[in-house]
Amino acid sequence: MRADAKKNRSHILTVARELVIGHGADASMRDIARRADVGLATLLRHFPTREALFEALVCTNLDALTQKADELETSNSPDEALVSWFHEWVEFARSYRGVVAMMAAAHTNPDSALYASCAAVHAASARLLVRAQAEGMARTDMNGDDLFGLMSALGWLIDLPSFAPRADHLFHLIASAILTSRPRAFSDQAGSDRA
Amino acid sequence: MRADAKKNRSHILTVARELVIGHGADASMRDIARRADVGLATLLRHFPTREALFEALVCTNLDALTQKADELETSNSPDEALVSWFHEWVEFARSYRGVVAMMAAAHTNPDSALYASCAAVHAASARLLVRAQAEGMARTDMNGDDLFGLMSALGWLIDLPSFAPRADHLFHLIASAILTSRPRAFSDQAGSDRA
Repeated sequence: MRADAKKNRSHILTVARELVIGHGADASMRDIARRADVGLATLLRHFPTREALFEALVCTNLDALTQKADELETSNSPDEALVSWFHEWVEFARSYRGVVAMMAAAHTNPDSALYASCAAVHAASARLLVRAQAEGMARTDMNGDDLFGLMSALGWLIDLPSFAPRADHLFHLIASAILTSRPRAFSDQAGSDRA
Repeated sequence: MRADAKKNRSHILTVARELVIGHGADASMRDIARRADVGLATLLRHFPTREALFEALVCTNLDALTQKADELETSNSPDEALVSWFHEWVEFARSYRGVVAMMAAAHTNPDSALYASCAAVHAASARLLVRAQAEGMARTDMNGDDLFGLMSALGWLIDLPSFAPRADHLFHLIASAILTSRPRAFSDQAGSDRA
């Protein structure tokens, strides 16, 4: 891809992200093209369908999550790293309505456009779990699949309007099922980055 | 409703339940009438739409769940009662594909046909939780809404083909987030009915 095409693509994704977060997945391709200040033809050359655009958006965010996990793996204590990363995941799940169900279906389907990014998130969370387990900070009778399952279940739950108000507390309950010591309150974690 | 109409209705629900469990929610009204050995007109008099039939089916099962909770409340020790009932719930959630999402939406919507039955299940589970909390057997920093949320999240998760194989273990992880002592393995619970 040429440099200006790459720049266009990245700009479209940024604009689409803002629109999707603000207005849900209902934003039309026409809206997105207008807001990104590109022609509809250009938009469609990069993303032939709304689905393709949404998938690219989700992949970009999943890859950022994976990178975040890699950073946490070296800079935080194992239990804090796991909880911080779980927190990042929940924030991501909250941003895109329906994304958790999409991922739960994609992570075992190699034909899905999300497969590679899902697998990377899955592997990154498993690494954080194993690291916490090695230090006796996470229960050892669970594996990366279980962790991904609990993350997915929580993400699905707090996306529902009736459970969203108790999201932080539900997060805390699930986190305490994973860690051997009771995790500190959610708000204490924000911004913590201790070695 | 006359006695024979009541009997017809109950017979149709039994047949529909078997069909739905065997073939998912795809069974047609015509199939159900034929299997129940009633005319299609009779079926439609009782249940004007497949949706109405499915809702009636779910309500019947939810009411049975509530009754089960009432029994457990008097016959089992508080923690065993809670886990046994959670188990009943999971079995129910497994029987009807998509029912958990339906309930999670219905329990805060008084216009839903499932509302009353959902509210009864919610209240029954909250009673079992409070009883376990009073004996120091369940964590006290959660309420009936949280329990209903965790139940819903688990029900949703194990309905997914990729997580179904680890259902028992995921159950155990969630149960251990609720109880103060680590719950016994799931298989040990089956059939237990100690006072």
